[in-house]
This record gives sequence, structure tokens and C-alpha cells, in this order.
Amino acid sequence: MLRKIKTIEKRRQYLEKKTGLSLVDYAFYPPGFSQAEEKNCENMVGAVQVPIGIAGPLKIIRDNGMSEYYLPLATTEGALVASVNRGCKAITRAGGVRVTSENTGITRGSLFITGGIIESRKLKEWLGKNFTKMQAVAEQTSGHLRLNGTFIKYFGTNVYIRFSYDTEDAMGMNMVTFATEAIIRMVENDTGFKCLAVAANFDTDKKPSFLNFLLGRGREVWAETLLDKQTVRHILKTTPELIHEVNLEKNLKGSMISASLGFNAHFANIIAAIFLATGQDIAHVSEGSLGITSTKFVNGKLLVSIYLPDLPVGTIGGGTYLPSQKASLLLLGSAGGDSGKRAQQFAEIIGGAVLAGEISLLSAIAAGSLGKAHRLLARGGK
Amino acid sequence: MLRKIKTIEKRRQYLEKKTGLSLVDYAFYPPGFSQAEEKNCENMVGAVQVPIGIAGPLKIIRDNGMSEYYLPLATTEGALVASVNRGCKAITRAGGVRVTSENTGITRGSLFITGGIIESRKLKEWLGKNFTKMQAVAEQTSGHLRLNGTFIKYFGTNVYIRFSYDTEDAMGMNMVTFATEAIIRMVENDTGFKCLAVAANFDTDKKPSFLNFLLGRGREVWAETLLDKQTVRHILKTTPELIHEVNLEKNLKGSMISASLGFNAHFANIIAAIFLATGQDIAHVSEGSLGITSTKFVNGKLLVSIYLPDLPVGTIGGGTYLPSQKASLLLLGSAGGDSGKRAQQFAEIIGGAVLAGEISLLSAIAAGSLGKAHRLLARGGK
Amino acid sequence: MLRKIKTIEKRRQYLEKKTGLSLVDYAFYPPGFSQAEEKNCENMVGAVQVPIGIAGPLKIIRDNGMSEYYLPLATTEGALVASVNRGCKAITRAGGVRVTSENTGITRGSLFITGGIIESRKLKEWLGKNFTKMQAVAEQTSGHLRLNGTFIKYFGTNVYIRFSYDTEDAMGMNMVTFATEAIIRMVENDTGFKCLAVAANFDTDKKPSFLNFLLGRGREVWAETLLDKQTVRHILKTTPELIHEVNLEKNLKGSMISASLGFNAHFANIIAAIFLATGQDIAHVSEGSLGITSTKFVNGKLLVSIYLPDLPVGTIGGGTYLPSQKASLLLLGSAGGDSGKRAQQFAEIIGGAVLAGEISLLSAIAAGSLGKAHRLLARGGK
Amino acid sequence: MLRKIKTIEKRRQYLEKKTGLSLVDYAFYPPGFSQAEEKNCENMVGAVQVPIGIAGPLKIIRDNGMSEYYLPLATTEGALVASVNRGCKAITRAGGVRVTSENTGITRGSLFITGGIIESRKLKEWLGKNFTKMQAVAEQTSGHLRLNGTFIKYFGTNVYIRFSYDTEDAMGMNMVTFATEAIIRMVENDTGFKCLAVAANFDTDKKPSFLNFLLGRGREVWAETLLDKQTVRHILKTTPELIHEVNLEKNLKGSMISASLGFNAHFANIIAAIFLATGQDIAHVSEGSLGITSTKFVNGKLLVSIYLPDLPVGTIGGGTYLPSQKASLLLLGSAGGDSGKRAQQFAEIIGGAVLAGEISLLSAIAAGSLGKAHRLLARGGK
Repeated sequence: MLRKIKTIEKRRQYLEKKTGLSLVDYAFYPPGFSQAEEKNCENMVGAVQVPIGIAGPLKIIRDNGMSEYYLPLATTEGALVASVNRGCKAITRAGGVRVTSENTGITRGSLFITGGIIESRKLKEWLGKNFTKMQAVAEQTSGHLRLNGTFIKYFGTNVYIRFSYDTEDAMGMNMVTFATEAIIRMVENDTGFKCLAVAANFDTDKKPSFLNFLLGRGREVWAETLLDKQTVRHILKTTPELIHEVNLEKNLKGSMISASLGFNAHFANIIAAIFLATGQDIAHVSEGSLGITSTKFVNGKLLVSIYLPDLPVGTIGGGTYLPSQKASLLLLGSAGGDSGKRAQQFAEIIGGAVLAGEISLLSAIAAGSLGKAHRLLARGGK
Repeated sequence: MLRKIKTIEKRRQYLEKKTGLSLVDYAFYPPGFSQAEEKNCENMVGAVQVPIGIAGPLKIIRDNGMSEYYLPLATTEGALVASVNRGCKAITRAGGVRVTSENTGITRGSLFITGGIIESRKLKEWLGKNFTKMQAVAEQTSGHLRLNGTFIKYFGTNVYIRFSYDTEDAMGMNMVTFATEAIIRMVENDTGFKCLAVAANFDTDKKPSFLNFLLGRGREVWAETLLDKQTVRHILKTTPELIHEVNLEKNLKGSMISASLGFNAHFANIIAAIFLATGQDIAHVSEGSLGITSTKFVNGKLLVSIYLPDLPVGTIGGGTYLPSQKASLLLLGSAGGDSGKRAQQFAEIIGGAVLAGEISLLSAIAAGSLGKAHRLLARGGK
Repeated sequence: MLRKIKTIEKRRQYLEKKTGLSLVDYAFYPPGFSQAEEKNCENMVGAVQVPIGIAGPLKIIRDNGMSEYYLPLATTEGALVASVNRGCKAITRAGGVRVTSENTGITRGSLFITGGIIESRKLKEWLGKNFTKMQAVAEQTSGHLRLNGTFIKYFGTNVYIRFSYDTEDAMGMNMVTFATEAIIRMVENDTGFKCLAVAANFDTDKKPSFLNFLLGRGREVWAETLLDKQTVRHILKTTPELIHEVNLEKNLKGSMISASLGFNAHFANIIAAIFLATGQDIAHVSEGSLGITSTKFVNGKLLVSIYLPDLPVGTIGGGTYLPSQKASLLLLGSAGGDSGKRAQQFAEIIGGAVLAGEISLLSAIAAGSLGKAHRLLARGGK
Repeated sequence: MLRKIKTIEKRRQYLEKKTGLSLVDYAFYPPGFSQAEEKNCENMVGAVQVPIGIAGPLKIIRDNGMSEYYLPLATTEGALVASVNRGCKAITRAGGVRVTSENTGITRGSLFITGGIIESRKLKEWLGKNFTKMQAVAEQTSGHLRLNGTFIKYFGTNVYIRFSYDTEDAMGMNMVTFATEAIIRMVENDTGFKCLAVAANFDTDKKPSFLNFLLGRGREVWAETLLDKQTVRHILKTTPELIHEVNLEKNLKGSMISASLGFNAHFANIIAAIFLATGQDIAHVSEGSLGITSTKFVNGKLLVSIYLPDLPVGTIGGGTYLPSQKASLLLLGSAGGDSGKRAQQFAEIIGGAVLAGEISLLSAIAAGSLGKAHRLLARGGK
């Protein structure tokens, strides 16, 4: 029924009638937002609004200079913005966060079925020999996409192929689906083998996997800062030694005996809050929580480092053009496309923000003040 | 600076001045929403709005009867609402989705440090003998919380304790942090051993872990439906045999060789969309993507089953009271608290929605129409 | 053909004739060894001989006193015995190795098939209510076996049950298979549900699994020692600081980014060598390599700790009665049965030996002498 | 003490005196065996003897023809040889087992420490540019070794490098340690960065890891056969349908919910038995248990396939030259070196043997006769 109704408002009215509920609160959104019904959301009835708080400024150091950013964080978890803010303060006082990244590439992992291991081996060999042909086919589907590599694994009748693409400033999942479908048609045609699934979890899209952790997905990001004793004492209310110990016993050993792929305190919190504020695909939080926080003493200071192996982000496409989401990207100097540079910059800022979040939460745990912070902030207390 | 400014609007103005950008689009939100600055979000400057689309109705079968629900999904991924909607249609036509769940309990995993393995063993023994004392201490912190069990693991000087709680209709992470802190004070006092970290990743909170997959966390949910050939052909445009094969080769084997904990097609998409619409903690999408989709032929029909081992949800607390979020919960008949029954009902509806999403995506892949659907819907095409 | 030939010698002759090869070297084994053809090995044609070297003595500290053991190690890896020997020397000089263990229980994990999630839930509930009945049935199959617990997990039509047993001094896999088969017959009879597989990998027998790591299997063993600076310098040719660093960066972080369940240097080497010398099931090396080596400074000394979560061992049954194997068990004071105490003692000695192996290899890596040791010893060089 | 005694016999006598035990059973071994004290085993006091049984013949199909092999299996697990023998019979009757393999390469994974992420990135870049130089350095250490590739991963100050080598017919761990040490000296010299550990678990040697599962280690082997209904009924006493179902629900799903890397029934049993009979390194059983058994109906027959991702084997070096071990290799036509071809052939035979073991055990479970087989054979029963 709903699919036949033509406007957001009429759908909302239909639903109100059907359910006897008032949905007027769904009606608060900016001009221009309603385009979403064409591109982002079928059967659209309005919007949910999520609070945005600001952390920072955060000083980021790149090979070519320093910049400061205010971080827009959309969240309903009291204490989170305050916590990241405290981390930014510590980092900025300590001289800033150094970042680097690689555009490892967004992936699509498809599955071909053969008659058995000998055919599977032959298909693997064929794919190895025809890589440039696959590249050409892929690139015909978009001027902003390049097939960078494949990783192939087979057993029995199953040949899994992980295609890895550069999609410039777009997160790119739709683009790479189209490109992969084109490659598949060509392979089916040339080899006679059939593809069972264009998306066969070998991507691995929107699920945590060690495959992604190991080979990387989207952008891989590293960020680090050197904390001195004074900064830790004044801003973080603990000591570098305690932060180091908590990181080791919680993030590394605690995750080890939990068989977790998240060797960190709460990457997911920061990833989720920035993704939401900037129009990223929220389901990718499932991948963004992978990664490592490591600490080490270097010349008397504590080097705190984070590594994000699997960060699928874009500065164009998806929800990035919606009004508030775009404003958030502009705040980060990362709106629009520029041959992949804009998305790289955006990914690296996320790396810095994640580091800020880790430093602050590790410190709160070290200082024994985790509950206290939530008691004060999440309950509106004083 | 921002922390000293007293209203949302003034903070926004301050930021606009600092950055030279217009942030007016952050200003669209319903009356009552601004309370969030007290409980959910520090340095609040406004809101991001995310489109809500409606899928359904979905027919859900419980031990005590049937109900139908319209599902509010907040997303910017074109084609997602349409896909879930199609799944709802198939399920409803096939007679509905059967659901069941367990309130396995939200967890906090703490770490004590001892002098070595003999002391670690003794602490473990002590904890075993003093369980009812820990329960009493925990329950003094809230009338809506009960310590249900502990799971203890030690090596060397490290004793990890996973406390598992019933928190009724609240997701409960803050409640269990307070309760665990109280237990820790008692244990420190009685035994002399010190706690290094109240939250030591043995929870595992907001990271994917096999520990959670195995022991469960929050609520565990199961949902299933029996698809007949006609329903599959008319609504899903494929065959039960192909859905079965794709599930096996993609969701099970594809995840197996990716070392993924997500043996499913896209749980994360549906979890994220409902969590966002209803004021849940979005960072928990990192856990919600864990789980299994299984298929099997039973008397000529295809039984499709999903299992969510780790679903931390609440119908009170967090962002659930915000205007649009509350409207979404009301749509699902799940707003407010009722001794845990409301949250149970909500969790089971999510189970049904996830099943709808799986059925539809598996069918699209089986039919080779994945790219086509996104081309039509995500690009505003026809 | 071979199955019809009645003696070891005639089978060997038959094979020699068939292949034109001399198999005379298979004929070297002690009197009494040939019983193996009745219990341990069908189509038996003789023996393979594996070198046994001796490490130690190793000083072991238990709650009730100290003992010293010579360790029989069967191996063809040059440098291994020398390395463990060096570790024993360091440990003994440092005052000995403290050990403790739990008889967590050998497991069998079976699978029942139901009609779907509602029936699966009911079966789980039924099993919970009928635990003492299952115990009774199990104990009728042997006077040396006790069902200690079950761990149940289900999804869709599949209900997996991990039965955990105390089998006293036997490793017990055969005993628990018989007991589990008896339980299964009873459950099938009482409930009408059918068992598809008595052994359904939920054991997990002879495969590495995090399930075993987490819940333990067979015996769980802990061992530790406190190394002082002088012992490390004189015997291990390195420093406590370097051992600590190598352990952290190799055994913990190196395993972490390899998604390994073996957070150690070479547990498998020592497990394999002792298992082989004492008649254990060598295929269990696949489980014995799981575990953790952890290090920490305590009052200026380095505490080195190992944890073996999954050690299936026995001092009766299997190959333990064969002549050389029995001699090895006698060397360890662990031959025969004594209500589980003998196997406990044996498991704890293995713990001590594993610790010796870890200390020595970590030291060799820290000192940069890994290749050198193998060059000298494995090649018979100078 | 023992290290100063010069002969096997005198060491044994010393130990007998010290312990008051008779160790005469250690004295049974063939002429020539005592060389082991120079190359394989320090403090050698004799031998342990393990029963060898023969399974087969097994018909193996390669691209260039068919061969039949008798399989020497060293084991103390009653019923194992009989079970593999039954599998061989079924395979041979069904036309043989098709095999293929890749010499993926034995690995050594080293760790360099830098000052932080920017230096780590630079070291990674440097290693990428100097690959041929590393190859040259490696190849100077042996004429039978080639560096085939590296896989590099870094976070914080830690740069892990997985070096992968072709070592022809040798398993090669010692060779690659020497080669890697030479590379490390060069890298340290040229870059100034220091190596902390030549062996940093990124190999991953003698521990199960998904890294090995994914990228392969040693040789990767595939084997498969097509079982017809009659063969299954007459020899395996069950149906293809049941074998298929048990494989799916046990080996795939049962391992999935156990977070196991062994998606098979008992690879470890066959790997251990052949490794022991042929002088391989038994500790590598920890890796050999990784892998997949998959089944699928093809034209009415059941295709059963196994995949061994991580099989480190050699036909020269280690214990392969010892008398009985060499006899076993000769039985398999795989003794000595031939530019890697001999080890390839050996690895592929192991693949066939593993398939035989899987087919037989899956059938026993499907037929409900697992306990029965062990009752009859392992207890010398009737």
C-alpha cells in the first residue's frame, strides 16, 4: 500500500490512520532533506533526529602540515562527546595526532561453482591470466573506479574471488557491485563457469571478519600521539603507566581470551557517532569496530597508537549530500570529491578522533572513574 | 570553550562564527528533543536527521498469538527498506514468522590482578563461594537489576570475571557498570585483591567476539518461517532451492573461509536501521551483526531460520525517550517498561525484521538481481 | 588382503613381496609390544622408532611439596631437548615451577535435529530438567566415568549438546563415546527427537577451537616461575626485560594479528614430545598447542606463566601400557590409575615442561641465537 | 650431567641408576638409528616404538596418470587404521582420488621495531622496493631455497613481515630461519631499524592460525572423489545423502559454532599417523588439523572434497633419514629429494589418505556405528 502513496506526508498520514498514533515528530527536517525518498529510503515517512555534539578542536599532523578540526558526533550515549573532547584536549596539548592511511580498496567477494577441484584450479589460473581484461571491463562501468587486485581461494567446487577496487571519494559499494557484475558476465561468457553469488561474504561486507582485519578493506588508517606525564595527570587524571597497563591487560589480553577482533576499548562508539553525523552507512559500524590500540614507552613518554584495518567511508554518495550530514562533512573540510583525497583526509580525521576516544576511555578506566562519568553525564546529574 | 556555553543555539552560533560555516540544518528537530543535552549529548549543537521508511506489515507468531507490525527503518541505503518490505510480504503470505528469545543478560567483564596462578585460583574459588553476597550488593544499586551469573577465566596474574545481569526493559550498560563497581569494592575489601579495570573486554561490549557469540549477550533471539514454492516464485522471483544453495555457499561457507562471526547476509543493515529509529545505542551494531541464517527443507517447504546471539536492546533509557525514537517504539508496541516483557517483545520483532531482510537479500542474490535493485532504487532511477 | 593375515611378521613379508622393499627396520621393538595389534593398530606390520632424549631434572612445586622429574621427550627436531633442558635448569635454579590444574573434563558434542526453533527450545529445556537421569545412564556404562555437565546451543533445527565427563586417569574418548551413545538412546526414546551425529565437532575433538580454549577440555593446567636477573643472564644469556618484550610482541601481539589460538612460542613441540614418549594420542597435539604464555614483573623478578586450556591426557588406556611408553610414565611417577590423581600429576608435569620450553625459546629469540642453536645441534655441526 | 655422557647406552644406565627404573625397552631400534643423537635428539637414551599399520592400497589420480599406494600409519588409536583402510577401499572402488597441490611455501614471520607509524610505513615501503635484494641475500644461504614473497602488516611501532620460501623437498624450517636471519642482518644494516624477533608468530609455526588457513603454508593440497550409491552402501554401510548431511551439520555448522579452524572430522588423526611413520615434525600436527571437508551431489553421485591449507612436509631432512621412517617414505615412493617433486607427490598422497579417513569416519557417524567400531577394535574385543 505504502509504496503507492506519493509523498512523505501522505504516507505518514496513512500510517497514523492505520495505527492511531501521532507521528508528527517524524516531520522535523531541513529543506532539501526530502530528496532522500528518491535515493536513500523507500516508503519514506519522515526523519529520526539524533543529537549532535561537538568535540575538539583536535590537532592533526600530516606529512604536509597541521590542521585543527571540530568533530561532529551524533550520539545518544551520555558522556561520549565529553570523553572524546577530553581526549582531543590531551592530544592537542601533547602536540597533536600524527596520521597516515592507505586506500586498500573496497571489495566485493563473488562465488563461482565448478565441477570440482581440477576445474576450480583452472578457473583460478584463468583469472590470474586475465586480470587486465577484468580491469578493462570493470572500468567501463565507471570513470571513478579501478580494479586493483583479486584474492582467490578455492575448495571443492567453490571458487571465491575477492575483487578489490579504488573508488576515489565514494565508499563505493554500489559501484563495485555493478563493476563486479560486469566482470562476472565476462567470466561466465569466456569460461562457461557460472557465478552463484555476486556477494558471497568473501567481501566481507557488513560483518566482522579476520579476512578484513588481515587484508584490510576500504581505507586502513593509523594514528598516534606521544603523551607526556603532565598532560596525562592534568587532563586525564591518571598516569601513563596505568594507561599502558590497562591497554595491555584489557584491550590486548582481555580481547584475546574473548576471541574478539576488536583489540580496543570502544572504536565502535566514535565510528558510529561520526558515521551518523556525516551520512555514512551505519551498518558498516560492524566492520569499523575492528582494530588495535597499542601503547609503548618511547623516551619517557607514552606512545599511543591506533590501527583501523577496515574503514569503508566516502565523502560523496550515500547520505553524504543530505543537509545536516553535508554540514558535518564541511566542518571536517571533507565534503565532495577530489580524486580520493577528500575521503583520505576524512578517514584520517576519523583515525584521530578514534585515538582521542581511546585515550579518554582508557584513562577513565585506569582512574576508576568510568561509572562516575556516566552517572554525572548520562543522567543529567551534576 | 563550548562546554561553557549554555544553550544549543548559542553553541551552534559560536561554532558557525569559528568556522564560517552555516549549521542551520542542525536546527531541525521536534519540541522536547533538546532535553538530550542533559542526558545524551554534551556540547550539543543540534541534530542530524536520518530518513525513516516503513516496511511491513510483518506478521509475528508468538506462543500466545499473532500480531502485525509496521517496521520503522532509519537508513540512507537505497533499496534497503524496499528489500525488507519484500521480505515482510513473503513472510506474511507464508503464514508469519515464529519467534522466541532468551534474556541471557547484559554483561560487564572486569579484571582483577593477583600475585600469580595460586592466588588467581583462590580468588576464583572465593568468587564461587560468595555469589549470593555479590548478588545482594548488586541489587542494592537498583531495583530493576539482578545478577544472574558469572563466568570466570584466569591465567597468570589475571582473573577475568564476566558478570551477567537481568536489567528488565533497559539495555542496561550504565546500570551494570554501577552494580559491578559496587561488587568490585566489596571484593577488594573482603579479599585484598585489586581490580585493574571494571571494563576489561571480557564483556565484550561494542566489539565482535566469539565469547559473545557462544555465551550470548543481551537478548538471544531466534526467528523462522516456512516458505512455500509459490510465495518464493511470486514475491521473491526465485526458487527455494536457490535460496538454500546461496545461503549454504555464501552465508556459511563464505563466512567460514573469511573467519567471520557473521554467518548471515546483512543482519547489520536491519539492526542498524531499527536501532537508529528507536533510540538504541548505535555502537552496538558491532555486536548485532553476529549470528546465523540457516535453511533446510521440511516437508517440501524451505525453513529459513535466523539466530541473533547478541542483541543488547532496551525500551527505556538511552535515546528511547526522544520524540521520534519514542514514536518508533510506539509503532512497534514496545515503548516503556514492563518487567522486561516490553524489551523481549521488541527484541523478537527485531528478529522477525532481520529474517525478512535475510530472505529478501538471499533471494536477490539467487536471482542475480542485486545490482539491478540498487541501480533502480539507490540512484533515484526508474 | 592384509586383514586376513594373522601375524605382524607375515603381514610385513606380504608387503615386502608386494612392493619389493625391505621393511626389516619395522621389526625393532621390545617384547610385549606386539599386543598392540589387538588394541591399538590394525594391519600392524611393526614399529617406527622415535629418538627419546632426556631433559631435566625439573623441580615442581605443588601445594603439598616439591618433586624433581627427568622428562622423556621423543622428537626428531634437533635442539629441542637441549632447549627444554636449559629451561629446566633455569627454572630449577630459580626455585622451581609452581603448578595447578583443574579436571575440566573430556567432552563429546552431539547433534539432535528437530523440526525448528520452538522444538529446539523445548529439547533444550527437557535436557536441562533431565540432567540427573542422563548422569545415571552415563554412569551405567562405566564405573570410572561421571557426567559433570552439559553446554547446549541451538539454532534452526540443530541442537548441539556438549557433554563433559570426569574419566579419572583415562584420557577417556572411547569411554565418553559409549556413555554419550547411551544417553542419546535414552533421549531419542523419551523425546522422539533423533540424533544425527554423536560426534558433531562441538566437542571439539582433535581440531583447534575457541570453544575449547574458552570452556576448557580434558585438563586445564597452569604453571609459573619467578626468574631473577642472574639466572636469566647466566643460563639464558639474555635479560628478563628482553624476554618480557619478546613475549609481548611475539606471543601476544604476533598471534593476535595472525588470528591464532596459540598465544605461545611452541607449546606444540613439548606437548608432542611428551605425548609421543608416553603413549598419548598424538592427534591431540592439535588441541595441545592452544594456550597462553604471559610475563610480568613482580618485585623485580620476571613472573613467567603458562596456561594450557585443553590438555587431554591419560595414564591408563590408549598406548600407555606399551613397553617404552610405560617406562616413560614411570620416569614421571605417573603410570597407572589412582582415581584421577595420577593423570592430574602427569598433566601438571607437562605444564612444567611446557614452561621450560617457553622460557628457553623466548630467551633464544631474545638473544638472537635461534638460528645458531639449530645450526649447531640440528646438523650435528660444531 | 647427562650432556657430558658420551653414548646412548651410558646415558640410559646413568638414568636407570638415578631413578632405580629399568629403561631396557628404550633399547630397541634398528642399526643406523643411533645417528639421531647427532642430528635429532640431545641427551638421547634410546627410542619409543609406535605401532605401524597399513591401509590401502589407495588409488591416486594425477594429471599424468594413476598410482596405488600402501599407507603406513603409526598410531595407538585402535580402529584408526581399519577406518582409513575402509576409506581407501571405497575410494579405490569408486575410481580413485583426484589430487592437486600448490607449493605455497614455508614461512618465517619476523618483527622489526620502529619509532612509530610513520617509520613503520617507511620500513614497509623500503621492504617493498628491496625485494630482489632480499631474495639475493636469502639465496646465498642455500642452493635449495628461494624467497617467493613477503606479506607485511604494521601497527604502532611493530612491523611484522611474513617471508615465504620454496625449499624444494625439505620441510625447510631450519633453512628459512637461516635465510631470514641473513635478510634481517641486511635490513638492519641498510635501514637502521632493529629486529626484535626472527620468529614472531606471524609465520605461524606450530600454532593454528587463520592467517595460515587463509594464505596457506607449506603445501596446500586438495583431494576429491565421486562416491556412487553402491560403493557407499556396500563398503560404507550408509547412504550418500546421510554422509552429505553429517558433513554439513557436523563439519561445517558444528565447527562454525565452536569457532574452530578445523572444518573436518579428523584430519589430525591421519596427518599425525603419516607424519609419525615418515619422520615429519610431529608438532606440525597443530597446523595439519586445519582445513575443510566439503560434499556436494554432482550428477547423482556424491563429490567429497578435502582441502589442506597448511601442510608443512619434507622428504629429506629432519627425521626422514631414520631407518623405519625412510622405509615408510619408500613405501610411498617419496624418499629423497628431486627439486620439490618428491615432496609434492608425498603431500598429495597425504591428501588422498586424509580424504579416505574423512569418508570413513563420516560414514561411521552417519551409520551410528562410531562407538561400535571402537568397542570392537580398540579394546581387542569380539
